[in-house]
Amino acid sequence: MAQTHVHTHAHDRHAHQGMPKMPEWLSVEEALDKVLGYVHQLEPEQRPLLEALGQVLAEEVAAGLDVPPKPNSSMDGYAVQAADIRGASPGSPVALEVVGQLAAGQVPSQEVKSGVAIRIMTGALIPPGADAVVPFEETDELQSGGKRKAAGRRIKVLAELPHGANVRPQGEDIHRGEVVLRAGAVLRPAEIGVLASMGYASVRVVRRPVVAVLATGDELVEPPEALPPGKIYNSNSYSIAASVLKYGGIPKQLGIARDNLPDLERCIQEGLDADMLVTTAGVSRGDYDIVKDVLMKQGEIAFWTVRMKPAKPLAFGALRATGRDGSPRRVPHLGLPGNPVSAMVAFESFGRPAILKMMGRRDLARPTVRAVLEDDIENTDERRVYARAWITKREGTYYARLTGPQGSGVLTSMVKANGLAICPEDVPLKRAGETVDVMMLDWTAEQF
Amino acid sequence: MAQTHVHTHAHDRHAHQGMPKMPEWLSVEEALDKVLGYVHQLEPEQRPLLEALGQVLAEEVAAGLDVPPKPNSSMDGYAVQAADIRGASPGSPVALEVVGQLAAGQVPSQEVKSGVAIRIMTGALIPPGADAVVPFEETDELQSGGKRKAAGRRIKVLAELPHGANVRPQGEDIHRGEVVLRAGAVLRPAEIGVLASMGYASVRVVRRPVVAVLATGDELVEPPEALPPGKIYNSNSYSIAASVLKYGGIPKQLGIARDNLPDLERCIQEGLDADMLVTTAGVSRGDYDIVKDVLMKQGEIAFWTVRMKPAKPLAFGALRATGRDGSPRRVPHLGLPGNPVSAMVAFESFGRPAILKMMGRRDLARPTVRAVLEDDIENTDERRVYARAWITKREGTYYARLTGPQGSGVLTSMVKANGLAICPEDVPLKRAGETVDVMMLDWTAEQF
Repeated sequence: MAQTHVHTHAHDRHAHQGMPKMPEWLSVEEALDKVLGYVHQLEPEQRPLLEALGQVLAEEVAAGLDVPPKPNSSMDGYAVQAADIRGASPGSPVALEVVGQLAAGQVPSQEVKSGVAIRIMTGALIPPGADAVVPFEETDELQSGGKRKAAGRRIKVLAELPHGANVRPQGEDIHRGEVVLRAGAVLRPAEIGVLASMGYASVRVVRRPVVAVLATGDELVEPPEALPPGKIYNSNSYSIAASVLKYGGIPKQLGIARDNLPDLERCIQEGLDADMLVTTAGVSRGDYDIVKDVLMKQGEIAFWTVRMKPAKPLAFGALRATGRDGSPRRVPHLGLPGNPVSAMVAFESFGRPAILKMMGRRDLARPTVRAVLEDDIENTDERRVYARAWITKREGTYYARLTGPQGSGVLTSMVKANGLAICPEDVPLKRAGETVDVMMLDWTAEQF
Repeated sequence: MAQTHVHTHAHDRHAHQGMPKMPEWLSVEEALDKVLGYVHQLEPEQRPLLEALGQVLAEEVAAGLDVPPKPNSSMDGYAVQAADIRGASPGSPVALEVVGQLAAGQVPSQEVKSGVAIRIMTGALIPPGADAVVPFEETDELQSGGKRKAAGRRIKVLAELPHGANVRPQGEDIHRGEVVLRAGAVLRPAEIGVLASMGYASVRVVRRPVVAVLATGDELVEPPEALPPGKIYNSNSYSIAASVLKYGGIPKQLGIARDNLPDLERCIQEGLDADMLVTTAGVSRGDYDIVKDVLMKQGEIAFWTVRMKPAKPLAFGALRATGRDGSPRRVPHLGLPGNPVSAMVAFESFGRPAILKMMGRRDLARPTVRAVLEDDIENTDERRVYARAWITKREGTYYARLTGPQGSGVLTSMVKANGLAICPEDVPLKRAGETVDVMMLDWTAEQF
């Protein structure tokens, strides 16, 4: 990977010499702003409730009914008039005539007048006239041997209860007309349940993006093929497609493009029906880094040097494509570096927020904690360093231990990490014992 | 829901009177121990890499090769002998004859002897004889106008580099024979990538559980059907099936069973090929709570009163079933309460860890934070209270504000929550300003 940039360090003497175009030198925030400027929330789609889990509501949902629709009992007991049982106690019970019974789902056919009660089950409608439910435990029901044929029998009430006791009022949860969920809400199990409680079987949500993933390189072999000399296995396609999936996108695997124009153009063509194209490698300035050539030809593309480590070289732009209706469209393209760690960290930094934005999410940033470093982080060239770290919490304090060799080819360093500990651009060294921000990749119970 | 239990409170005078069997009174931990005693890690299955995302590795994975398999270049530059360029500087460059070039994926056919260099691209094998790579920026390459036909030309090296500079050693990431991933590892994008880098196209993981979900109740109507008087929409099936999906299980929706034995038995029968059956409602002691009758007939079942609020009544046990090979098997059954919030909180507490255990996960508990309460939590009857709360982080401190009415029928209180603030069993009141444990349901960037 070419190390050239236009800043203050050792190689500046070579800047602008003999190369067609220098990449822009951007901060992580500047690069992210540019990426997010290219991607847009996708159009809505109608989805069955359960399939919409994790998607974002595309429109406000107002209740078409009260939930519950009518007052119902929150206990198994007797529906009564509260005035009738005033002063009731075990020593001075009030006897009421049982005139009927009601199960959940039944429509009351009788009224509760003064002096009578209707045996009622949890969830059953409160019958007209009743304004409280006396639970079995506050009656002599349990002494009666659990007789179920109640009508005509008398029940003794052993306690006074106020008006409304054990009655779930109409609209207790949701009032008709109320805006229950707003556009932008992420559908979690609770939201799915609430939508069902209002009678929705499907819901209008922002579509998930299809993200085409293309590895490039003559050295790559697709697992599980045999590995000839000089070759390595394609791993980037898998880690990146898995990340796409994890963050809610639908990966479309395009396989491996070889380092020649026809093959690369053919592969990219297959990705132009996607909502975003992610490529790995070919964005440096080596002789075979031809991704940039194709992209310059087929679209508008920027080559950046992002002030971060790993993942300095990055390409981003948009490819010209044709929609199904023949109209021109632009496909955002994220050109990740080829090193496995660089590709993943760059995808975390730019691909994840792009996917989330397309999905309609508003919370695009990773959660961050402050942690005490247990190892030094060196910063040799004024980039923001994302050091792979294992975060633990001990007695309320987070600690970040680096996961060993931090080379951008050492993918096992990501396996050992649950966070990325950050050394800022302007700090040449963060020492063990100092506190840093950590971008959390995982939250597992062992640590938190 | 019947409020009877065998403990120290107002209704104890009714305990053991006229009812066939009293439910056990258990702490949350005791109930969870019993649930986890019934469920077991499922058998392994072979899955394509990408489809195994989020599953747990069923066996240890040792590397069958070094990664990288051979030393390669980490830069675009010139492969040289480090001894040749000792003392090189811009004022005193060392000139080398370029004898060839190497792209990634090519097999070197030439040797680097003293006095010569081979032009080399990132990822290409280090040719025999070479022990360092001089990046373009440390040569006069960039002054040469980017000429690609290098052989026969001379290159000036402008800097001294040590032995091994810009060479990725063989096995830098992974050594052949090394155990790279252990059984029990959760496959995240990094693990998927590392498996690909070792040539795996599929992997042996613990199977995901199929969880049958059955709502019960004559009052339930499936959305989007019209709602007759006295009825409510079935929401529990949806919130619970969505939770199953969220935690990695495969929900099998069994719909709604009516409150009569034939229908319930028919529905349960359809769920007996699942790895777990979850029902909602019917576990109390009302006349129509017949789930317990069926379950007592078809299996071994315990009725519990769990010392928690919401979600006190719970049934758990195992149903007798027949495996595909005709052998007897037992299907764990979790009988959730019918109230929507109770069902969700009980599923969070018992269903989620059961699913995770079946999936081979070891981290079964939710992450917990300590937060300052912004509202009181009352505890009227010595249960552990899980209050729906919205957690925010301000200046490094977590705060928990309750999400309004906490009735177990108020499902919107779960929509407004991102955590459950806990008031312990033995604390009658946690006041605003006091610190509590919060079981986090979501981590979003807005808060953290």
